[in-house]
Amino acid sequence: MSRPKNDTFLRALLREPVDYTPVWLMRQAGRYLPEYCETRRRAGNFLNLCKNPQMACEVTLQPLARYELDAAILFSDILTVPDAMGLGLYFAEGEGPKFERPLRSEWEIRDLQAPDPNVHLRYVMDAVAEIRRALGNSVPLIGFSGSPWTLACYMVEGGSSDDYRTVKTMLYDRPDLMHRILQVTATAVTNYLNAQIESGAQAVMIFDSWGGALSHAAYREFSLAYMRQIVAGLKREHDGERVPCIVFTKGGGQWIEAIADIGCDAIGLDWTTDLGEARRRVGDRVALQGNMDPVSLFASPEKVAVEAKRVLDSYGSGTGHVFNLGHGISQFTPPDHVTALVDAVHSHSRRGLAVG
Amino acid sequence: MSRPKNDTFLRALLREPVDYTPVWLMRQAGRYLPEYCETRRRAGNFLNLCKNPQMACEVTLQPLARYELDAAILFSDILTVPDAMGLGLYFAEGEGPKFERPLRSEWEIRDLQAPDPNVHLRYVMDAVAEIRRALGNSVPLIGFSGSPWTLACYMVEGGSSDDYRTVKTMLYDRPDLMHRILQVTATAVTNYLNAQIESGAQAVMIFDSWGGALSHAAYREFSLAYMRQIVAGLKREHDGERVPCIVFTKGGGQWIEAIADIGCDAIGLDWTTDLGEARRRVGDRVALQGNMDPVSLFASPEKVAVEAKRVLDSYGSGTGHVFNLGHGISQFTPPDHVTALVDAVHSHSRRGLAVG
Repeated sequence: MSRPKNDTFLRALLREPVDYTPVWLMRQAGRYLPEYCETRRRAGNFLNLCKNPQMACEVTLQPLARYELDAAILFSDILTVPDAMGLGLYFAEGEGPKFERPLRSEWEIRDLQAPDPNVHLRYVMDAVAEIRRALGNSVPLIGFSGSPWTLACYMVEGGSSDDYRTVKTMLYDRPDLMHRILQVTATAVTNYLNAQIESGAQAVMIFDSWGGALSHAAYREFSLAYMRQIVAGLKREHDGERVPCIVFTKGGGQWIEAIADIGCDAIGLDWTTDLGEARRRVGDRVALQGNMDPVSLFASPEKVAVEAKRVLDSYGSGTGHVFNLGHGISQFTPPDHVTALVDAVHSHSRRGLAVG
Repeated sequence: MSRPKNDTFLRALLREPVDYTPVWLMRQAGRYLPEYCETRRRAGNFLNLCKNPQMACEVTLQPLARYELDAAILFSDILTVPDAMGLGLYFAEGEGPKFERPLRSEWEIRDLQAPDPNVHLRYVMDAVAEIRRALGNSVPLIGFSGSPWTLACYMVEGGSSDDYRTVKTMLYDRPDLMHRILQVTATAVTNYLNAQIESGAQAVMIFDSWGGALSHAAYREFSLAYMRQIVAGLKREHDGERVPCIVFTKGGGQWIEAIADIGCDAIGLDWTTDLGEARRRVGDRVALQGNMDPVSLFASPEKVAVEAKRVLDSYGSGTGHVFNLGHGISQFTPPDHVTALVDAVHSHSRRGLAVG
């Protein structure tokens, strides 16, 4: 196995020279694409789509057929791991994910076990392998998982939450129970990401979607410590190639020095952080991924291009930048605005990197 | 007129020596208090309560009767200003604030005018005067307003929003219209806060609740620039006393150097920012207000006290800190946990400041 023909994404993550800034979009396979909605309709529901490797592969490839994206990302849900732990994931229409059996009682927490990803999450590994076959040697495939803290939020709350009242009350009142959940989940995520790497994922990303809801102190103890443990346990090389690891804490812009210290290759940033300042703060320890406001894609294609250039210029010249949005693309995004974005990133950065 | 008997809050904001760290809580007069719910029921609805100076005074004083708080804050809604501009504020039960006539068309935006606060917001000035009389010489009264950007979010969206899609699309596509709204609103807010100061407010706070939803660049252009303009236009002295001004951008922890530069006396911080680091970053330019996670009040009173001490210790010794939550208190907070919080802040900081 060698690197894919278009390895710009991997090169940027490893801070090797690139000809242009690579781009992919969080949630690039999703509801803003009519072809995705069609496949999802065929699947019956979202969970069927995640659990069917052929269909997961199909939707993973859809945005790559439309846009000149530099990476594919496994189509899956972040809650597959707690589902495999037996919590019973389901989706109530229009309400987001929910668990039939949220973690509340001490004995359930003591009984929690990390699942074997090659058994209980076989469908994910099959999807990874299927997507790699379908991608051939074109662009790299990103595997991913939710962070332990983010998964724990859903596991304890039983679904989405405005204020994380249940899980934070546990964190403050019973830190021992919170740490037990996070410890088991960190082991589960490590095994899950390593199984994805063995199945063919060429980079992995940890989504800490709710880390930014924690206080400065609690973030370090209850989210970052477990991501550090995962990063330390990851297979960083597979088939003779380095497998870069990206850590993204939404709302974590204040904490990037600490995040850079956990040993990841790149940090994902939301749109509130200036890329140039972030670059100065982390130095040459990590690459940066991000960070256009996804809502700016609602502006006209001309204004989308202007904003993309602003984001590129805020990073400056040289390698180490993967262009992305600062959060998942909105389901209401006009698909042709994404064309304008991808074109602007490629053409503007080609000029910039040629000069810079 | 002289300073109130308990002027610890004002002293901390002006970084004068204090015997202990003063504390008040954002939304301290609110639904977590049964006596508030009773008054609100009597008023019929929330807007009646805001528009009746006697009742607004009554609920403003309720938390001070229960807790040893070091400041009162005017009970009002942040949307009184756009209401006075003619947008038609109303509250749909369980849905939050809405406007009958959101700002969308160019001619409506061109027609927008800053209201005369002493005419169209007379009820607020009457409430301020009434509360000052009722407080006597006990503790200072804080006046407040929403920031232009935060008000504009509601004015353009027509209510709360998950993603600020309408207002941000205007920001990116028609920055000229966005600036026109913000300019008129900044004038309106300046006049509104000055009228509150003339009516008796002894400190003022600008709530930029949605500034943190903006990109680093857009925050400076569309939120901070207008708060700078307001701060420059505020009466900073009244009745021979300095009137301190606090600026709070929720989610703005990354931008505090820039916020400190606009000339405010203090910066409000949410719980994601470490107070000690913030203090090092802003130096002696401003005081800091905050920043305990409001959800930590759901932990046991013992754990609430532990967390309060952690927040105090993160600031360190010396004046310049006003204790607060990092956001408004939750309506579900057990009222006796607030007693534990206020006691812990006072007793722990008395020891700390005596030593430090």
